[in-house]
Formats: sequence, structure tokens, C-alpha cells
Amino acid sequence: MADCIFCKIAQGEIPCAKVYEDDLVLSFLDINPINPGHTLVLPKKHYTTLFEVEPDDLEACALASQKIAEAIYAGVKADGLNFLQNNFKAAGQLIEHVHFHLIPRFKNDGFLTSWPGKQYPPGEMENTLKKILTEL
Amino acid sequence: MADCIFCKIAQGEIPCAKVYEDDLVLSFLDINPINPGHTLVLPKKHYTTLFEVEPDDLEACALASQKIAEAIYAGVKADGLNFLQNNFKAAGQLIEHVHFHLIPRFKNDGFLTSWPGKQYPPGEMENTLKKILTEL
Repeated sequence: MADCIFCKIAQGEIPCAKVYEDDLVLSFLDINPINPGHTLVLPKKHYTTLFEVEPDDLEACALASQKIAEAIYAGVKADGLNFLQNNFKAAGQLIEHVHFHLIPRFKNDGFLTSWPGKQYPPGEMENTLKKILTEL
Repeated sequence: MADCIFCKIAQGEIPCAKVYEDDLVLSFLDINPINPGHTLVLPKKHYTTLFEVEPDDLEACALASQKIAEAIYAGVKADGLNFLQNNFKAAGQLIEHVHFHLIPRFKNDGFLTSWPGKQYPPGEMENTLKKILTEL
């Protein structure tokens, strides 16, 4: 897509700190890492969100992410790692070309410290399940 | 695995609010949701983290997650959605059976509000890249 910075990186028009590349997938270091080694994995083909990604690209991204995640974890001697993909601004998506974050984590590094899990009011779990199953 | 709660759910020994099931994958509502509709997707086979998951299980989880994510997004009329998988305690993993979170998001819902992206000191991006590539 003409104005997409990740398409430009995928086409070699903008440089990156490349971690991995194959026919379908590109991976490079995030320039504003949560922690050193924070890496992005994306399909070279332009899709806005996870919802549009075609199966071959999704499979390729998942398998590449797994291999790269292990290399990051070992390479930076991390204590943990988050595999994260954000869809739409309300979920924190900034670049409108689908991408997976591989974020190495260290004990008490201050990221994702809040996990505000709630309880469903009586009956609401069943109502929510029905709403999802209707769309599946 | 004998003492794994997600294995017991996968084997039908513990009930769940089931969203989806096939030969390889199980998906059900998280009982402590970040937001209503927060769903888990996991391989029925026991793996501790992303690193060990075999390719057929990983592909099945990725493709199922995509379909389920769309259904959640439409079903609960979300504004966004996070696809998140945590490896090891330092990254927030609580249950030691690999699982993918599908978290519907709403504007200003208070989750993942902090994204502490940093800058690499001069030379550190290249050093970090080398460490990762050595392991890849």
C-alpha cells in the first residue's frame, strides 16, 4: 500500500534491523522497544488487521514468530516473552499493517503490570457466549 | 498432564464455556475476563510455552484464533482486540499450558494503557540484533 511504512520496509525502500525474511514474512527490531530485543513479525503483503490475513500468510507468520521468539529469548537471556498482536486503535494498534510483537520480558520490568480480570455477573457469561457463537 | 487444569478441561473433566473445538484445538471463555468475551485458545496437547508447540498444533491454533477473534469482535461489538500469548511467569503466564488470549477491547477500557517504548543507546540495536541472529 502506497503510504504504509511497513510496506515500504518490506519492499526495501526504508531500512530496518532485519531479524528474518522469507518469501512471505519479514521480521525486524522495533525501533522503540519495550525491552531490548523487542521484535516485529509481519506478512509482507498488506493487511490491516488479523481478520484479513490469508491462511498461508498467517501460518507463515506464526511459525516464523515461534522460531524468532526462541532466538530472542535465548539471545537476550530473557525471563519471559509476550507474543502480542493489536487490532485497531482501541487495542493499541499504531501502524495499520498487521504485525506481531515479540517482547522479551525481564522480572519486574514494569510492562503489563495490570491484569484487571473481572467476574461475570450471574447469567452474563452465558449471554456473552451466545453472542460470540452467533457470529462463529 | 496429570495436574494441568487446561488438560482436564480439554479432556472434559472440568466444564468450560466452550466457544470452539476441533481435533487439535479447544477454545473457551476466560472465567476472569479483562472484558466480557475474553476467550482462550489452546492446543489440546500439553505444551508449556509457545516454544515447544509442534507446527500442526501451532497452525491450528493460529487459524482458529483468527476465526474466533472475528466472532468475538462482532459478537460483543468491540472497538479492538488483542491477540496475546504469555510465556513464563515474568511475562504473566499463570497456567503452564500454552494458551492464546483473545481480548476484546473498548475505547478507554483501562487495559494495556502503558506502552513504555524506549530508545536504544548508540550501538545497542546492532549488538542486540547480533545476539538474536546468533540463536536463530
